[in-house]
Amino acid sequence: MTAFERLREEVCEANRSLVGHGLVTLTWGNVSGISPDRDRIVIKPSGVEYEALTPDLMVVVDLDGRVVEGRLRPSTDTATHVALYRAFREIGGVTHTHSPYATMFAQARQEIPCLGTTHADHFAGPVPVARPLTAAEVEADYEGWSGRVIIERFAALDPAATPGVLLAGHAPFSWGPSPSASLRNAIALEAIARMAHGTLALGAPVPLEPFILAKHHERKHGDRAYYGQSRTR
Amino acid sequence: MTAFERLREEVCEANRSLVGHGLVTLTWGNVSGISPDRDRIVIKPSGVEYEALTPDLMVVVDLDGRVVEGRLRPSTDTATHVALYRAFREIGGVTHTHSPYATMFAQARQEIPCLGTTHADHFAGPVPVARPLTAAEVEADYEGWSGRVIIERFAALDPAATPGVLLAGHAPFSWGPSPSASLRNAIALEAIARMAHGTLALGAPVPLEPFILAKHHERKHGDRAYYGQSRTR
Amino acid sequence: MTAFERLREEVCEANRSLVGHGLVTLTWGNVSGISPDRDRIVIKPSGVEYEALTPDLMVVVDLDGRVVEGRLRPSTDTATHVALYRAFREIGGVTHTHSPYATMFAQARQEIPCLGTTHADHFAGPVPVARPLTAAEVEADYEGWSGRVIIERFAALDPAATPGVLLAGHAPFSWGPSPSASLRNAIALEAIARMAHGTLALGAPVPLEPFILAKHHERKHGDRAYYGQSRTR
Amino acid sequence: MTAFERLREEVCEANRSLVGHGLVTLTWGNVSGISPDRDRIVIKPSGVEYEALTPDLMVVVDLDGRVVEGRLRPSTDTATHVALYRAFREIGGVTHTHSPYATMFAQARQEIPCLGTTHADHFAGPVPVARPLTAAEVEADYEGWSGRVIIERFAALDPAATPGVLLAGHAPFSWGPSPSASLRNAIALEAIARMAHGTLALGAPVPLEPFILAKHHERKHGDRAYYGQSRTR
Repeated sequence: MTAFERLREEVCEANRSLVGHGLVTLTWGNVSGISPDRDRIVIKPSGVEYEALTPDLMVVVDLDGRVVEGRLRPSTDTATHVALYRAFREIGGVTHTHSPYATMFAQARQEIPCLGTTHADHFAGPVPVARPLTAAEVEADYEGWSGRVIIERFAALDPAATPGVLLAGHAPFSWGPSPSASLRNAIALEAIARMAHGTLALGAPVPLEPFILAKHHERKHGDRAYYGQSRTR
Repeated sequence: MTAFERLREEVCEANRSLVGHGLVTLTWGNVSGISPDRDRIVIKPSGVEYEALTPDLMVVVDLDGRVVEGRLRPSTDTATHVALYRAFREIGGVTHTHSPYATMFAQARQEIPCLGTTHADHFAGPVPVARPLTAAEVEADYEGWSGRVIIERFAALDPAATPGVLLAGHAPFSWGPSPSASLRNAIALEAIARMAHGTLALGAPVPLEPFILAKHHERKHGDRAYYGQSRTR
Repeated sequence: MTAFERLREEVCEANRSLVGHGLVTLTWGNVSGISPDRDRIVIKPSGVEYEALTPDLMVVVDLDGRVVEGRLRPSTDTATHVALYRAFREIGGVTHTHSPYATMFAQARQEIPCLGTTHADHFAGPVPVARPLTAAEVEADYEGWSGRVIIERFAALDPAATPGVLLAGHAPFSWGPSPSASLRNAIALEAIARMAHGTLALGAPVPLEPFILAKHHERKHGDRAYYGQSRTR
Repeated sequence: MTAFERLREEVCEANRSLVGHGLVTLTWGNVSGISPDRDRIVIKPSGVEYEALTPDLMVVVDLDGRVVEGRLRPSTDTATHVALYRAFREIGGVTHTHSPYATMFAQARQEIPCLGTTHADHFAGPVPVARPLTAAEVEADYEGWSGRVIIERFAALDPAATPGVLLAGHAPFSWGPSPSASLRNAIALEAIARMAHGTLALGAPVPLEPFILAKHHERKHGDRAYYGQSRTR
């Protein structure tokens, strides 16, 4: 199997597993991956149910978002995925869902504060919210601008340390070194959103101390990480 | 298989799938469909458990709600379904459930505000609440009046753009071009109710900007829709 | 199979199904049934996991709560079940769980208000709370007094129209004409507690109009009921 | 099979069952057990998915936390487990999870008040919160100090009567006479946290009367316990 065939399989499998992880309702979510030479993106076809997906139904687009392989239309969110791959050169996969709790924060247009070590294990600070689009941006190129406002929001942020974002009035996007890593970040994002939501309901939230935040992030992701087994990341 | 036999199967299957979608407890929900010539309605029998349903157990009624086929009593909500088919000539299926979050808004007698694009993808504005019935209406014809207050509420609304409603102190009804489309709208309605509920808990909700609401609804349902694959709707 | 063997099977099956209905954690729940001549009660053994239950493991006690058949100890809540069977002569089954939402209201020592027709279909008014026990009552006969305060609370209530109660600081009990009917009332009680909890979070709850409450209860349980299929109750 | 092989199996099985009990997301949880002579601790390997676990993949460490058997790295939380075994000589198993509701209280840095008998059946009082670590403690030995602040918090508490704790800004730890008993306490802790969270949302919580708290704890755990079947504990 070629590296590209494996990518198709990984993207297909990540999309199919969205359902079991409780991240999607109907067809509200999609995962993509980029080829090692970064000239081809594999993405879910639009509006197709997850259980019907097979690797050969995945759609292949180039870095202008044009379909280069596949009989079906790609996800309507393709232009947003493409924008992220162009701006964040270190990422290999992108996941977009309307998972309930992350979407509640996106709809409330509130960042998710870092209230605990679960959060710190995955995001090195609050999960940020991108600014709302203007009417002109929506009119001109809705999905493209959805990507551009994320990139704008990350002007002073490291996408490797903060592997996700909330689109105001919309829902989350997450990413990672591979399609399955972007999916794991989507799972973590939903779990920390849910726990932050319930913590806020208890009143008077205390932000996690910066030195514990740093400790947890580094023991898992730093140069001297000791979480998990030895491996290339 | 005739078109009518396929309708029986689709109605049966939609009813059976209510359980897996988490929309019903005990036997609190029912789906119906109308024949292409709009003279026969196929609906769930009353009080029968979902897993026991088969296509031939479905009850067939005419547009006066009289049973014309089937050994069992139709759903107690049949008169409400009939009223909707008579008033909304473009719909092909109706779903009624007591799904938890939509029912919370129905019990609170509050419309579900449009707070995000998930909502806009399915409803072109808030999910409306029909007015409560009077004592005289309940006494005279409870289920019929439940339909009439919905129709009254839609005097200035398009049932294709707003494919569902909340009955005050009761629960939601949704509809669509087919029984399975009405079921998908019931699934979407519950998901957006849940996310609105959790967004309101975060305080100070921001209604979705009208130009994004319109954009999302049109990219999915408009004349130049580009969500999903090419198909007749 | 004798009527008593069928009762053992029904009680065993109702206990086993508590898990699938999401009503129990660990072994926090039990269902019982009484023989037609009302001299023998079949109940779950204490502390045994649900999946290990078989009809012959059920414990049989008399109306003084003494074990008359079975190798295992009966549920610690047996004395409460017995008290209910002695006081409410029309009931055939009792279910006790610590289902989450009903228990939240029990812990808050708040009755569950009737906010919608789902509630009215099962309870002809609010779900009442029994008064807390005194230290002397706990010391003298904890489980017996748990039954007596329920009976005290029902001095002016009809247990057929209000088939359940909340014990202050504890959890719900429900009952019905049979063990499986008491289980269905436990399922309904948990669902209406959950929806009431979420409705109260939306603020300013509106009690269901008495004429709709009466209508819904009567169309399902009255002399001229038309919900479900013809049958003896 | 030797006692030590059975311990490996029990620890493996307890770790694997975390998923089905809804206590873990991704790999956020671990169970350990100690040998009868208290010189060897069996614990989950770090970052390995639960479904891939087998008894021989479990890691064995000594009471200084050094690996004495196994090819994989032990859980990053091993030093905390070790500290608990050294301080609490009566415990045989420890479970650590980031279960949602217990973690919400941990993040809010609020103890879980005893609001009902479900709580009293498992914890003889509020579930306590250990104090936050200082920057110096995090720097010096993060996981070791996580154990020491628990022990500090239990200076005047009996770990047998209060078999769990919340780490401020982190998550819960629970323990028991065996690995599976520590898991049951983790399940109970999550359930009582969820019910306390929902009870607090209803306002004006009433702490359980001390005489009922004592009664429930004693009927299950006291010298004259009558919950469950006769057995050695």
